[in-house]
Amino acid sequence: MEDFNDFRKQSLPLIEKEMEDFINEYTANEQLKNAMMYSIRAGGKRFRPLLVLATICSFNKKPQVHDYQVGAALEMIHTYSLIHDDLPAMDDDDLRRGKPTNHKVFGEAHAILAGDGLLTAAFQLLAISQIQQEQKVLLIQLLSKAAGTQGMVAGQAGDLQGENQLLSLTELADIHEKKTGALIEFALLAGGILAQQPDEVVDLLGVFARHLGLAFQIKDDLLDATSSEEELGKQVGRDEALNKSTYPGLLGLDGAKKALEEQLIFGTQTLEKIKQISSEFYIELLQELVEQLRLG
Amino acid sequence: MEDFNDFRKQSLPLIEKEMEDFINEYTANEQLKNAMMYSIRAGGKRFRPLLVLATICSFNKKPQVHDYQVGAALEMIHTYSLIHDDLPAMDDDDLRRGKPTNHKVFGEAHAILAGDGLLTAAFQLLAISQIQQEQKVLLIQLLSKAAGTQGMVAGQAGDLQGENQLLSLTELADIHEKKTGALIEFALLAGGILAQQPDEVVDLLGVFARHLGLAFQIKDDLLDATSSEEELGKQVGRDEALNKSTYPGLLGLDGAKKALEEQLIFGTQTLEKIKQISSEFYIELLQELVEQLRLG
Repeated sequence: MEDFNDFRKQSLPLIEKEMEDFINEYTANEQLKNAMMYSIRAGGKRFRPLLVLATICSFNKKPQVHDYQVGAALEMIHTYSLIHDDLPAMDDDDLRRGKPTNHKVFGEAHAILAGDGLLTAAFQLLAISQIQQEQKVLLIQLLSKAAGTQGMVAGQAGDLQGENQLLSLTELADIHEKKTGALIEFALLAGGILAQQPDEVVDLLGVFARHLGLAFQIKDDLLDATSSEEELGKQVGRDEALNKSTYPGLLGLDGAKKALEEQLIFGTQTLEKIKQISSEFYIELLQELVEQLRLG
Repeated sequence: MEDFNDFRKQSLPLIEKEMEDFINEYTANEQLKNAMMYSIRAGGKRFRPLLVLATICSFNKKPQVHDYQVGAALEMIHTYSLIHDDLPAMDDDDLRRGKPTNHKVFGEAHAILAGDGLLTAAFQLLAISQIQQEQKVLLIQLLSKAAGTQGMVAGQAGDLQGENQLLSLTELADIHEKKTGALIEFALLAGGILAQQPDEVVDLLGVFARHLGLAFQIKDDLLDATSSEEELGKQVGRDEALNKSTYPGLLGLDGAKKALEEQLIFGTQTLEKIKQISSEFYIELLQELVEQLRLG
């Protein structure tokens, strides 16, 4: 089994191929296609699809085309949410991953449509994929739950409503669990399902995902509060400018760093539990992801 | 078999129940729920879900809960598209079905999210419904195709790009086929599939849908050009104000009326072909819909 950097290098082109092939083949309007492709090609860490594939590989399975398609569908959902989040009526961001945001290049109307298109495309890609029928329906169900009104969209609404308010830690955690946690949880669940794991293991992957998701968000808040624009490739200090509650804001910088560390420890403990159940489970790949969330 | 008004009266509450139950049960943010419910409850003709159910009934099947859920999912997609279409960056409409548009009541950010939520909810509702597995996957595939980058979203992009341009009749028909035709086609295909009809019949239902969809659009253009705001319950003369190509614009009022009549005749002829293949087919219900598209 390779290390995470090798794994990433091998997986990224295959995930990106599935996204680009779909958009090229299934978009019946050139300007719409360009707008969708622009944000898909704007890069990013591809954290969510890599999680799907890392989970599959952790159970010693070789990913198939349909596994990359699940990763691609998930990244399309994530990308649509960034396009809509950046709109003037939402977070009003000009810069994303070091490049002008979608609406700055294509205009607001096409940015809205590019988001709508990518969201719908994610379900179309899953529906036409070669995933076994029963798993396919389950994955569509889980993805729509994670991305929709019980997950990401609800979290985004809560996030907007939380501006200019002091939230409790519980409220903040609830918003993040929905806004960013739900898709990360889907990634781990999907990986476990596609690797044909029993419910007990899939459930533990969900627990791991929730620790990882929370850690991811705390780190994101910490970076927004402490980095420069060059380091992040996007505008910084946005949370403060928008008067948003954040972990560093509620816990202080040191408290937030401690909370991050705690989630990473819980994450590792959960991986060790999975290892106890499933002897074929290779812990190192996901553990490396935990390490990458440690502050440098 | 009842006539269309009876059919509508019986079906509407059941379609609306499925939409409202879903939103009530599966929306984890109150303000988001209110915004989604507002547009769902704003009424409208429920033309698309009624088409699904009328098709099922035309083959002498009694609709089940899952059939109403397919209708509900389709109407949620239609409703999301209206919310996003009305946004200031798109058509910038203040009035829809005689009421303030979603963003006028809930603000732009929540209107964008209400649309995203309804779109995602449509796929979630299909995924959790009791439809038989193989049909479910097929319906999700057809709905994502009709609503997405090969259908409605592409049509909406084409429509925006066509503003301030003189389009040919072919270009105009292509835009409408995607923007409004694709969902209408889905309605008929879904009805045929849910009524367990053979491919040959489902294909003819698709042909019928394309005539109906075109007729629907020509009539919509004619009403926008000739009605008052009170009659329509929405702003009129918008096409002209936005400098959009329309059927009356390209063909003149008389030409557009003739084109509408032609599509209705083709529609009836297609229904008669279906009757020749399938003796159990009850032509009158769908024929009444054709009649309702006739100009008064």
